[in-house]
Amino acid sequence: MKQENKNYLTHHVFFWLKDPSSKEDLGKLLQGLQTLEQIETVRKIYIGVPASTEIRDVVDSSFSASELLFFDDAAGQKIYQDHPLHKKFVDDCSHLWQKVIVYDSTDISF
Amino acid sequence: MKQENKNYLTHHVFFWLKDPSSKEDLGKLLQGLQTLEQIETVRKIYIGVPASTEIRDVVDSSFSASELLFFDDAAGQKIYQDHPLHKKFVDDCSHLWQKVIVYDSTDISF
Repeated sequence: MKQENKNYLTHHVFFWLKDPSSKEDLGKLLQGLQTLEQIETVRKIYIGVPASTEIRDVVDSSFSASELLFFDDAAGQKIYQDHPLHKKFVDDCSHLWQKVIVYDSTDISF
Repeated sequence: MKQENKNYLTHHVFFWLKDPSSKEDLGKLLQGLQTLEQIETVRKIYIGVPASTEIRDVVDSSFSASELLFFDDAAGQKIYQDHPLHKKFVDDCSHLWQKVIVYDSTDISF
């Protein structure tokens, strides 16, 4: 069964570092992202870097890091958004990035 | 345990329909996406539409549908990419969309 019985809200955030060549900055960002796991409404967390898949026009591999979180619903995502640990992450790490894009999807698989 | 013992490759695709107001076109696209579950290297599949989370500058909720697939690795993603069922989906549905963005991430959670 590849589809789950439960329909999650997925919150996928892509980060572009100000200095994409800095391994130190990437390390700090990835370390900061790890702290978000502790927020109680986060059901699953995947922290990533661009994968080495085929280069194609439609594939955007220019980001530095990605954060994929699963929540039960929009209320759970809102609790995360306002949570002190999330605010601390933004305070500690937002100077590192130049751009962020967030995509929130409601899973409708059946 | 919110992080998995296994590090997946996540393949997240966002689709913008030519006619975002057409429920019929959205239905066709979502139906087409469902067929991708059958490809053997797909480990998990989540098919989504924009969630009703808070409106913020960084949140892009302009897409029509999203497809989040989990693979073991880039080789699994490549098999999917070249698979007859994937090609059939593109043949059947690509006339519906005006834009696609793909983000491939390697999960490095520990």
